[in-house]
Amino acid sequence: MDQPLLGDVFGEMIRDAYAVRTGIGPRPLAGGRVPRPVVEVIERDDGLINGAPADHYLAGPDEWQPHDHRALRLVRGAVLDIGVGAGRTALELQKRGMAVTGLDTSAGAIEVARKRGLRDTVLNTVDAYARSGAGYDTFLLLGNNLGLIEGPERAPAFLAALASLARPGAQIIAQGTDPYGTTDPVHVAYQRRNAERGRLGGQLRLRLRYRLLATEWFDYLNCSVDELEKLLDGTRWRLASVDTEDRPYYVAVMELCA
Amino acid sequence: MDQPLLGDVFGEMIRDAYAVRTGIGPRPLAGGRVPRPVVEVIERDDGLINGAPADHYLAGPDEWQPHDHRALRLVRGAVLDIGVGAGRTALELQKRGMAVTGLDTSAGAIEVARKRGLRDTVLNTVDAYARSGAGYDTFLLLGNNLGLIEGPERAPAFLAALASLARPGAQIIAQGTDPYGTTDPVHVAYQRRNAERGRLGGQLRLRLRYRLLATEWFDYLNCSVDELEKLLDGTRWRLASVDTEDRPYYVAVMELCA
Repeated sequence: MDQPLLGDVFGEMIRDAYAVRTGIGPRPLAGGRVPRPVVEVIERDDGLINGAPADHYLAGPDEWQPHDHRALRLVRGAVLDIGVGAGRTALELQKRGMAVTGLDTSAGAIEVARKRGLRDTVLNTVDAYARSGAGYDTFLLLGNNLGLIEGPERAPAFLAALASLARPGAQIIAQGTDPYGTTDPVHVAYQRRNAERGRLGGQLRLRLRYRLLATEWFDYLNCSVDELEKLLDGTRWRLASVDTEDRPYYVAVMELCA
Repeated sequence: MDQPLLGDVFGEMIRDAYAVRTGIGPRPLAGGRVPRPVVEVIERDDGLINGAPADHYLAGPDEWQPHDHRALRLVRGAVLDIGVGAGRTALELQKRGMAVTGLDTSAGAIEVARKRGLRDTVLNTVDAYARSGAGYDTFLLLGNNLGLIEGPERAPAFLAALASLARPGAQIIAQGTDPYGTTDPVHVAYQRRNAERGRLGGQLRLRLRYRLLATEWFDYLNCSVDELEKLLDGTRWRLASVDTEDRPYYVAVMELCA
């Protein structure tokens, strides 16, 4: 059986989801006729596979979860939306007259965000962009993008990159998920296996697939607030507040140490 | 990375889809909280992967496609619904007072069909059931289940099994899909590659995955009506009529030769 090809999985998926939502451009069809809903396929390294409809990446504010709205109320100054995707939250901030830059490593995602009207976009990693000399007051990691800190190995460099881009008094607003409330035996076993391997319980090893494409395997972190605080130790960021109203999802605000 | 486990993929998926639709029983959750839509993941041997929401397997008549309704109008006598799944069409026939038996190789599917009220079910292959001495007037292969004839190697044995179960004048009512109308380059290339390997263009090599489980790889046939007619050559069945109103989907009626 052929292996999938490495490529811009997220970008191809978002392009198709955008075509389905707007009716503009070629859309995936079942049997060449019926529009096929665009589904994100996520594989985990224990063999788990999940599919999730991709349309939520394009959702308007009326379709958001409550914590998204509460998170945006905390935004101030110049904003860097990290993992901007199709611009779901960045477009709303732009509409409110805020200075917002959307950063993503997916060329397809950036293309869709621009088509939807997002003016300031950066196709880059945070690490490379950290050397640009740009400065921000708020870093946004919504849509569970706290996961992008990956785990204990990656977090210090990721947080240092944001510190390089931070103006005095800058904040990170990040939405995360506490993985430890689950009773699903598949997830409980995965967390135990992670712990046995010296990883955080919710340090997921994933790859995304869409049609013929796959990403490389990467780490994506679901951590508790306690674990997040430990990851901040020795960095230039400290935890300022946590909104846990929509448990197990939370919105953490981290501030740059003076 | 761990490989998925072999198991009753379809059954586990249908159990979860049933739990989501009815609110009865444990349901898959995202983050231990938000119900996760149940998605069928289908891998093809060229590396293609597709996810499709599984809820349509439980759809009521008001949610069906028009050709499903037209197909059921052709049903007469004692019915064997092959690949009955969650009983989508069999339950409707039972409600209309018809004698209908639902056959499936998935224990989980049969369990859900019975929970939904289907009285006469068989957990078996058509080949093994062909030796049971049962007799039917109509064999139903809806929901694209014409695909179960797999291809030129398998079709004669599959059709012979149905002939063993056939009463005089019996018919097969099968819904298929003509694959050759597509312009999707991924599918066009797949059809060419199949042809180069001496396979029918739409002879798909697939496996299903759900959570930790996968099926073995199996063939599933999307064929044109012309190809179907050739597959009937030398069998006890002949093509009697084809409804192509919902092209590329069609409903073929095959009759037992006297």
